[in-house]
Amino acid sequence: MTNPPPDATAHTATPTPDAPAAPDAPATAPACGEGTAAAADAEVRAELERLRESIDNIDAAVVHMLAERFKCTQQVGRLKARHALPAADPAREARQIERLRGLAESARLDPAFAEKLLTFIIAEVIRHHETIARS
Amino acid sequence: MTNPPPDATAHTATPTPDAPAAPDAPATAPACGEGTAAAADAEVRAELERLRESIDNIDAAVVHMLAERFKCTQQVGRLKARHALPAADPAREARQIERLRGLAESARLDPAFAEKLLTFIIAEVIRHHETIARS
Repeated sequence: MTNPPPDATAHTATPTPDAPAAPDAPATAPACGEGTAAAADAEVRAELERLRESIDNIDAAVVHMLAERFKCTQQVGRLKARHALPAADPAREARQIERLRGLAESARLDPAFAEKLLTFIIAEVIRHHETIARS
Repeated sequence: MTNPPPDATAHTATPTPDAPAAPDAPATAPACGEGTAAAADAEVRAELERLRESIDNIDAAVVHMLAERFKCTQQVGRLKARHALPAADPAREARQIERLRGLAESARLDPAFAEKLLTFIIAEVIRHHETIARS
């Protein structure tokens, strides 16, 4: 990917209110300052944990979506094998890629990433189709 | 992937009731036979179209899921950059891969495919994190 999403660096361009105390703060800093730094660390860990839980939930959803997708493509593979249709269908793939790039753009996902991902998945599907056709 | 899903070849192991008329059927075949072949072709096309619509719906869902996932990982990237944490976290990635392999197995998705896919996505995320850290 050559172009990161437009908001990839947005947050780092502005100072953040919850930045931790500077690590080189003098040892004579008041106790409440140390408490604030510890609280900020705990806050960072909690925020990281919260985000990772969301990522894990999304990954579980994606795995189940893809399991369902492969059930569909396996049926396609059997249909194609039974009727001696080719495993790959470049015209269909081009339409899929164009459509997904559009969907990605509207969802603010990098279209190049969406295309690479679909290409990756389709390559796996074609391997399945070829396996079915050979069997 | 070395092991296709267990049901990848299941359907081809049994004769299918809706196989089309053999293409080398004699020209003297009754008209109703030709009608049956044409109907079978239409049925195949309709079935293929139905499956492809489901695949397109699933792909749209996956794109939107991944857009949401990148919103989360961008927040993680900013947190890491702000607190000078490394972009990659091999221990976390190992746990993610192990968990997703388990989820894939229970959903009858090839665990090796799920692992390759997650590795592909994580590589993209780490590139984002490094871009954020450099900016």
